[in-house]
Amino acid sequence: MEISQLKELLNKLSLEEKIGQLIQLSGEFFSEDQAMLVGPQQKLGINQEMIGLSGSVLNVTGAKKVREIQTNYLNNVDHGIPLLFMSDIIYGYRTVYPIPLGFSTTWDPELIEKGYEIMADEAVAGGAHVTFAPMVDLVRDPRWGRCLESLGEDHFLSSLYSQAMVKGIQKELGATKGLAACVKHFAAYGAAEGGRDYNNVDMSERRLRSEYLPPYKAAIDAGTKMVMTSFNTVDGVPATGNKWLLNDILRKEWGFDGVIISDYAAVQELITHGYAEDESDATLKALEATNDIDMKTSCYANNLADLVNTGKLDSSKIDEAVWRVLCLKNELGLFEDPYRGASEERELTDIFTKENRETALEIAENSMVLLKNKENILPLAKSSKVALIGPYADSQELMGLWAVHGQMSDVKTLKEAFEEKIGSKQVHYTKGCDMLENYDFLGEFGIPIQVIGNYQLTEEEKQAEHAKALAYAKQVDVVIMALGEHTLQSGEAGSRTQLRLPEKQRELLNDIIKLGKKVILITFSGRPLVLTEEFEMVDGLIQAWFPGTEGARALTNIIFGDKNPSARLTQSFPHNEGQIPVYYNSFITGRPENSETHSGRFVSKYLDAPNQPLFSFGYGLSYHETKYKNLEISTTELTLQTSIVATIEVENLSDSQGEEVIQLYIQDQKGSVVRPVKELKGFKKVLLEPLSTTKVEFEITEEMLRFYTRDLTFESESGLFNLMLGKNSDEFLQVEFELIK
Amino acid sequence: MEISQLKELLNKLSLEEKIGQLIQLSGEFFSEDQAMLVGPQQKLGINQEMIGLSGSVLNVTGAKKVREIQTNYLNNVDHGIPLLFMSDIIYGYRTVYPIPLGFSTTWDPELIEKGYEIMADEAVAGGAHVTFAPMVDLVRDPRWGRCLESLGEDHFLSSLYSQAMVKGIQKELGATKGLAACVKHFAAYGAAEGGRDYNNVDMSERRLRSEYLPPYKAAIDAGTKMVMTSFNTVDGVPATGNKWLLNDILRKEWGFDGVIISDYAAVQELITHGYAEDESDATLKALEATNDIDMKTSCYANNLADLVNTGKLDSSKIDEAVWRVLCLKNELGLFEDPYRGASEERELTDIFTKENRETALEIAENSMVLLKNKENILPLAKSSKVALIGPYADSQELMGLWAVHGQMSDVKTLKEAFEEKIGSKQVHYTKGCDMLENYDFLGEFGIPIQVIGNYQLTEEEKQAEHAKALAYAKQVDVVIMALGEHTLQSGEAGSRTQLRLPEKQRELLNDIIKLGKKVILITFSGRPLVLTEEFEMVDGLIQAWFPGTEGARALTNIIFGDKNPSARLTQSFPHNEGQIPVYYNSFITGRPENSETHSGRFVSKYLDAPNQPLFSFGYGLSYHETKYKNLEISTTELTLQTSIVATIEVENLSDSQGEEVIQLYIQDQKGSVVRPVKELKGFKKVLLEPLSTTKVEFEITEEMLRFYTRDLTFESESGLFNLMLGKNSDEFLQVEFELIK
Repeated sequence: MEISQLKELLNKLSLEEKIGQLIQLSGEFFSEDQAMLVGPQQKLGINQEMIGLSGSVLNVTGAKKVREIQTNYLNNVDHGIPLLFMSDIIYGYRTVYPIPLGFSTTWDPELIEKGYEIMADEAVAGGAHVTFAPMVDLVRDPRWGRCLESLGEDHFLSSLYSQAMVKGIQKELGATKGLAACVKHFAAYGAAEGGRDYNNVDMSERRLRSEYLPPYKAAIDAGTKMVMTSFNTVDGVPATGNKWLLNDILRKEWGFDGVIISDYAAVQELITHGYAEDESDATLKALEATNDIDMKTSCYANNLADLVNTGKLDSSKIDEAVWRVLCLKNELGLFEDPYRGASEERELTDIFTKENRETALEIAENSMVLLKNKENILPLAKSSKVALIGPYADSQELMGLWAVHGQMSDVKTLKEAFEEKIGSKQVHYTKGCDMLENYDFLGEFGIPIQVIGNYQLTEEEKQAEHAKALAYAKQVDVVIMALGEHTLQSGEAGSRTQLRLPEKQRELLNDIIKLGKKVILITFSGRPLVLTEEFEMVDGLIQAWFPGTEGARALTNIIFGDKNPSARLTQSFPHNEGQIPVYYNSFITGRPENSETHSGRFVSKYLDAPNQPLFSFGYGLSYHETKYKNLEISTTELTLQTSIVATIEVENLSDSQGEEVIQLYIQDQKGSVVRPVKELKGFKKVLLEPLSTTKVEFEITEEMLRFYTRDLTFESESGLFNLMLGKNSDEFLQVEFELIK
Repeated sequence: MEISQLKELLNKLSLEEKIGQLIQLSGEFFSEDQAMLVGPQQKLGINQEMIGLSGSVLNVTGAKKVREIQTNYLNNVDHGIPLLFMSDIIYGYRTVYPIPLGFSTTWDPELIEKGYEIMADEAVAGGAHVTFAPMVDLVRDPRWGRCLESLGEDHFLSSLYSQAMVKGIQKELGATKGLAACVKHFAAYGAAEGGRDYNNVDMSERRLRSEYLPPYKAAIDAGTKMVMTSFNTVDGVPATGNKWLLNDILRKEWGFDGVIISDYAAVQELITHGYAEDESDATLKALEATNDIDMKTSCYANNLADLVNTGKLDSSKIDEAVWRVLCLKNELGLFEDPYRGASEERELTDIFTKENRETALEIAENSMVLLKNKENILPLAKSSKVALIGPYADSQELMGLWAVHGQMSDVKTLKEAFEEKIGSKQVHYTKGCDMLENYDFLGEFGIPIQVIGNYQLTEEEKQAEHAKALAYAKQVDVVIMALGEHTLQSGEAGSRTQLRLPEKQRELLNDIIKLGKKVILITFSGRPLVLTEEFEMVDGLIQAWFPGTEGARALTNIIFGDKNPSARLTQSFPHNEGQIPVYYNSFITGRPENSETHSGRFVSKYLDAPNQPLFSFGYGLSYHETKYKNLEISTTELTLQTSIVATIEVENLSDSQGEEVIQLYIQDQKGSVVRPVKELKGFKKVLLEPLSTTKVEFEITEEMLRFYTRDLTFESESGLFNLMLGKNSDEFLQVEFELIK
């Protein structure tokens, strides 16, 4: 539709029709022919007319259903403005990738962009228009369950993924391809105090701008069509009603003119938060903050008209919000074809295809982090006899909590993949034990999530499983323990204070270890667990995350050497819970441990644990071994007009090919504010040929050295810098250079 | 000296002489006749002349020594400006009180004021002029070792103590009485990230002003003569070089015109922090931030003159700093009597007197928190036969890490106090086990601290102690376990990630518990420990902190009923380490647990631990039992001109007297920023007569409702408030009122 026509359309709308465009309801409101129900309507307390005018739908997919609802809706409204279908399509539609914290360990934004394009293609066929992705909340606290959806602790790397995901989702966005991306949760949701979901967030504006905002900004710069607000406060004000955050920073400073939507019920929660007096006040505050769409509450529906009619809200504010929604619908081509890509035929041919699954496999293979490989126990020979033991040994629960459109029946289990790879005769399998001591908390889960496939063994079964596990272990060359946290222990509202493997599983592992066999531990989780004790016990350790529909195949490819692992951690694995938060780019203290200037008791350290995490940012092993050497820089002086070229040679000492993530860190030695001990500034994932040396170049420019200086100006400061090139944030070669401005 | 004379004096001083006034060196520099030594001087790198001019001394006490040093010094300098003796006199001089976190549980600022007056009297006799107290760093993280010196998690209560301590220290401050107080560490040192000492601090200006700054401000308002900077950054800049913090807030906003001193070596640490280029730059930044005295580095001594001579620093800045130092010396009467109260005679008569010790006893008795008393097992009859078991059963290490001037030989042990109370025949005593599994870390302690009285049992002794413990336990009515953390596990640089009792002690307790005897656990610690498991096991639990020279007597008075405990916690005891930070005055979330509006999974909670701590702020038991009833308010409407009187009746259901801390909390239901769930706004410690009802009144005024609103204005906002009156932050009666402005 031409912009002029769209403007005419806006002018034709009644106030109620306009308000309708600013309301989002879930599928239940639309699931009957009349698109108006008694049940949920009463519960939410919106009147029937407004429900009928509601302009967007939450979490309905499937071409048939989407088309039906759209048809019914258009039959019932004037002006022919189609419904906008939005959905949680977070890390795969039906072809499910590893959880984002997992795939962020690929250090391969291009691969992720490709994956998100495929995801969007599948979802378009299923009738979706908007996905609530990417989620780019920076996270440094593994207690927070939504680590699962995050991209790790580093804003530089998160920002690259943020851009890649938006580009992939919105690729060739138009009438038949692409979804509108909705970056979330704006802002700083990942910094919930104590890692307790929805808790208060507090930080300096300096930290907010330096560390937490960049990944959102990256999505804006990549053209994301939408932004979702967060549940938490920013400087004392809940994000959804935070005018400084939404209007001043997001819209004015960053120039975002797309649609802002509240997170689930967040407008109403302004009242619970004690920030709004009542629904009318919440509505006013959210809309004045320029939050356009109210997700799943009655606030906008029941109050906006009154606010305008009583003069408390200027109607131009409504027009602006509606205009943004109409523009989005128009950009998606909905006025020309309200059904857009929704197609039952395409659902059959384009979804969960072999090709799509191969991409998911590739992502999964590149997301599994080899954390220990004592005496090169891995890869295993395909002639090995193995015992595959643990609650995850034959489980389809490999998708994690937020794979809303994935189907558990699509998931190949580890047992199946093992048997496919080396034949069923060589694999003994048993659960070994219950996944959890106590499943009671699962009952509290209020909404239907299909991934709940928990089981609970009887006392008899427990004993049998345990006996079987020990018996099998004795008979084989290698024991593979498939352990991890339960799906429901992670994800949204999955905050935990204790991050070790469930107790029953640890007991089982201990019993197996006592047999003196070689043991490889595979851990499934939505977060960094505390694996300090287990790390010491086992011969091999692979962090498998929740790896998605193709995860089991990826894992067997790695275990048996068809894939040389290359993943590198993006979030530190803490030594214990008392060390949280622990992250690589912490600030220089005045009393650094093990330094030239300081020693003894009075340094910044713990008495009973190291300052370093168990596994640091950037860490991960491969089957090949490397030597980093000959770090050189083209000049020691950097100016505004020139750059430095840093080169390093990476020698592959092994006779096998392998991918290596060569990481560039820089430390600004002095600043008008205290600077981090190091910051990731670049990386290259390169293929190393066997027994050969690869030379890699990085260009360093002044731009890369900018930061928020004392007065919050974003600029660089002259002085000395350390340049570190190496295999992770702890192991690198180092050289000094100077910026002269 | 008249001010005009003082000004003349200032004008007479050479630049070097002025700079001397801004330097503080430790006692070793003055311990020889010539006041100039080769050893430390070379180490610090200050030239001999400047050392001779240095105007203040760190941590030298003792009348004889002080007088000698002063005499030698005055013989060697022109103008007769005496040395200023400053010292760490933190919670007692030789008569040692419980650690501050302990005595803060008295809820009795008047008692503490009295204690600090006595402390100052003792220290004056010992030749001190200034004490580096009060330490008022708000703390919410028990991992931080300096919990020990803090006053808990609440700024209202901390502020009252802050004022009381300054008043006590500076009472009748003049030529013969009182010390100059030095409030520390400005600012927010207690918020070190991860509870790791000296680590980076980050928070919003809102939080800084609302929660962390008030206790310092209270000290300023009470007239503290000095302020010490903190080691940490505030908004990216180390406090010692933070002009915004020191000059803009402390001096200009708050009007502080006293002396600012850096913490130990903090000027030089500006370089380590990467905030200053070198010593000259560090000096410039610290002095321009208005830090007057450089403690224990060569920065000021070696660089100030050059900075002035090269025009980088205006000499008027030096004059201002020196003027503040001279004024302080003058206020202390040093120009009239450079020896001031330092008196070997007074040391014999006025220090560690019976009267002083009775005050210490009173403080200790009021600082021990009864946390559990199952079936009123306490108090014990004096006819009881008890086994007193544990590393603290006969230990003199009851003073904690920072009782620098206390003498271990003064400390009565628990065993001695028990025998004194009930006779030696009724007490079986044994260590039972080693205090720690591993004493290795103690070796790292670089400076001499006399409280290190650790021991390590041989394997044979261990077995004998363990056997004896079990044997004794079997023979008695009640087992008293005296367990706790080692002195060196707390205090400065005593950060710990795991907060449970040492493992050996827990094993011993477990073995004792298995005997089925009644068990009372007494815990000694410098912080809230994690006592969740122990709490379930034992019949009685008393938190004894490090209770000081009179601690053992206080404890036996409580155990045998000569004192009815009345202490109430000022810092939450966490359920486990993964719950940190946990504190009572957290903010309202949008998804509160167990609320009318929210239930199920998607609320702000942990899956595996409660949101509440094991023991909340304000919690503590007494031997009497109470019923709170008939909460009434004089009106439900508060205005700027009127106040509300709230009354509550507290019925003592027991036939014994007891002191009760009646606590007033208020919640602002709505605000322009999200408000805390409750805030302490008042309390009264009252004596309840047996079987009688006491009516207590509180006046509520508009002033009490002020806070930092959206734009950081400090004011109240009209609206509804909840008033809570009760026995702790979890148990109270509640009523609503409205503020109408």
